[in-house]
Amino acid sequence: MKSDLDRLMTEREIDALVILPGENEDPYRAYLANGADFSGMVIKVRGSAPVLIANGMEIDEAAKSGLTVYSYEDFGLSELAREYKNDADGRTVAWYTRVFDKFGIQGKVGVYGVADVNFAYRTLTLLADKMGDRIKLVTEPARNTIFDTAYQTKDTDEIAHLRDVARETSAVMRDTRAWIASHRADGDTVVQSNGSPLTIGDVKRYVRGQLLEHGLEDPGSHTIFAQGRDAAVPHSRGESSQALKLGQTIVFDLFPRAESGYFHDMTRTWCIGHASPEIQAIYDTVMAAYRESVAMCKPGLPTRDVQVMVCELFEDSGHPTVLNTPGTSEGYVHSLAHGLGLNVHETPYFPTYGEQYTIQPGNVFTIEPGLYYPDRGYGVRIEDTVYMNDQGAVEILTDCPYDLVIELNG
Amino acid sequence: MKSDLDRLMTEREIDALVILPGENEDPYRAYLANGADFSGMVIKVRGSAPVLIANGMEIDEAAKSGLTVYSYEDFGLSELAREYKNDADGRTVAWYTRVFDKFGIQGKVGVYGVADVNFAYRTLTLLADKMGDRIKLVTEPARNTIFDTAYQTKDTDEIAHLRDVARETSAVMRDTRAWIASHRADGDTVVQSNGSPLTIGDVKRYVRGQLLEHGLEDPGSHTIFAQGRDAAVPHSRGESSQALKLGQTIVFDLFPRAESGYFHDMTRTWCIGHASPEIQAIYDTVMAAYRESVAMCKPGLPTRDVQVMVCELFEDSGHPTVLNTPGTSEGYVHSLAHGLGLNVHETPYFPTYGEQYTIQPGNVFTIEPGLYYPDRGYGVRIEDTVYMNDQGAVEILTDCPYDLVIELNG
Repeated sequence: MKSDLDRLMTEREIDALVILPGENEDPYRAYLANGADFSGMVIKVRGSAPVLIANGMEIDEAAKSGLTVYSYEDFGLSELAREYKNDADGRTVAWYTRVFDKFGIQGKVGVYGVADVNFAYRTLTLLADKMGDRIKLVTEPARNTIFDTAYQTKDTDEIAHLRDVARETSAVMRDTRAWIASHRADGDTVVQSNGSPLTIGDVKRYVRGQLLEHGLEDPGSHTIFAQGRDAAVPHSRGESSQALKLGQTIVFDLFPRAESGYFHDMTRTWCIGHASPEIQAIYDTVMAAYRESVAMCKPGLPTRDVQVMVCELFEDSGHPTVLNTPGTSEGYVHSLAHGLGLNVHETPYFPTYGEQYTIQPGNVFTIEPGLYYPDRGYGVRIEDTVYMNDQGAVEILTDCPYDLVIELNG
Repeated sequence: MKSDLDRLMTEREIDALVILPGENEDPYRAYLANGADFSGMVIKVRGSAPVLIANGMEIDEAAKSGLTVYSYEDFGLSELAREYKNDADGRTVAWYTRVFDKFGIQGKVGVYGVADVNFAYRTLTLLADKMGDRIKLVTEPARNTIFDTAYQTKDTDEIAHLRDVARETSAVMRDTRAWIASHRADGDTVVQSNGSPLTIGDVKRYVRGQLLEHGLEDPGSHTIFAQGRDAAVPHSRGESSQALKLGQTIVFDLFPRAESGYFHDMTRTWCIGHASPEIQAIYDTVMAAYRESVAMCKPGLPTRDVQVMVCELFEDSGHPTVLNTPGTSEGYVHSLAHGLGLNVHETPYFPTYGEQYTIQPGNVFTIEPGLYYPDRGYGVRIEDTVYMNDQGAVEILTDCPYDLVIELNG
């Protein structure tokens, strides 16, 4: 968690963390700046609280962090612009030198953030070249940065935010189910009161309205509401023009962000009107995998063990999985879970192969088994977000029933 | 425009453009991939169409670009993962080598995108180190990259998208005005039908609902609806808890993105019920600056000339400006305009000092003069987005009246 950063910096021999400026949503900046919404720099020297450097217009927003805020002008930006009129690179080095002097930065400097690649690579190669006598810029392997490690365990404030976004997201999912149920069928098509088909586009508009009501946003509008064959392609988002049909599987995967910056992630699979025995059997197998996973997770367990258990459970029922059929596009085609917080995907991951993670108290992660058969036209996934609490028990943060069939009552 | 890229690559001696993978919204990727919504790589070798490399789950989305799509697996990702089990860096180099071999990439490679800084800097320093015999990674000065230059002039498809988002955004602004007008006042406070104050939070919720109805999103919820003193701080977004008051200036700056990825940007300043002669006079001065700017813009003109004209116009009326009072926080405190497209801020800029730009046919930019007096509790800004068309005429894409005073009719 955030309070581990100084210890992690000592262990990894990193003297300072620098978050580059940029207008993009940046979980690193949000994390260090306590969620303050600004586009400037954050610097954390080992043993000291983070400091923020903001442009003049964003000082007030940056100050909401409760941290010390400087302006770019405090380090003479305009003066340097005049001095280095036709030498932007010289200006950059001079400005960073002033900043690094002010905070006594030397030694190993870890660089983070979400930024323009051309800008970041240009700035960093320049600093590495011109300031190499005092600093060494360091990077860490993907998924194993100091932030990845800190993100894995949430502190009390973060858990409160994650509970809030869980509650609101669950309400949107439940309300959407009830709203769909309020419709009626004409033949095998779900229709609105005026008799026109209810489409996936209609549902997505309803969902966006509900997200708004609940203070949530869906960055990039990536909500998945996919029916039939699309439900069997895990990242298909569904075709807006398609009408809802009775008896088809619908995979509804909702992963919005609250104003706090924290995400929730949950999935339900529904069949409207009725489900075939074949689909019901698949659904029951996925629910069994979900329940076994919840029962199995405990501190100290390698995450891979849970992924392998699920693969074996599915394979025992005759489904191919990524354990023994790598690259399969039928059966169980992904990993069981991922952590989430200020990122919708973060450590701990639950890979079949590759780098390993261990379940710890303070983890918040999804559990999302699924079975997919594109050629048979159906897919099923169930996903909750859970919290491994300080007592070592799994708390399910998502609050939504698991019933497969939606009975229409319109 | 996009069709200039090969010429620009020749002029700048860049042999290939590489957009790094990443889950963030990435205008570079959207631009080269014709708006396809995926998180993979894009490679453009000079003289050839861009090619896309996507993960298996995003192949279908990537294919909507109409371009050739490869999967990571086409370059042996799983095989390399086994071969370089404990050597992620070795795997990275081996994978990029296969990709660069396939497309015959050598020479100067420009690197772009929006990505995780730690990941991007690690990957790029690794490639520069290990593949230095065949490629040289190059960067360009901020605001002067090959993309910045291409973005400056829009092609027919882009203009169509920009007209669409202009029409929808303007409708939201007009509807919001009408909705506010439908309320009544109790003393100097605007109230709802139940008598409770109408707050900025209420207005923002209404606006978000309208954006949704019009297929627009407000990434990061950055809409500005700021009243009184806040209206005089250009980037204050307004306080949700504040009730709307008669006679105060309200600056409403709306810059949403359509599903196409293109932005619109517009601002209106309103006073509810009445405006003091002092505010009306300030308003008239800003409108004069706006009209003079529209009249002045023409192909071949340095953008700075328009900014300086506005500064002089304001200074003639007694207002301090950034021309002769750099760093002022009263009067005219910013630059007149910026280009927009897949980025809400892009070239051409209209700076007072620093790098210069020339107005060209195909430009789409804002015109947004303003006057700000925090200590007097008011600020005024008027902003439209305009298109410098092929005939060299300014077309105003925004479609919304400029009236200052909103008469309540509720």
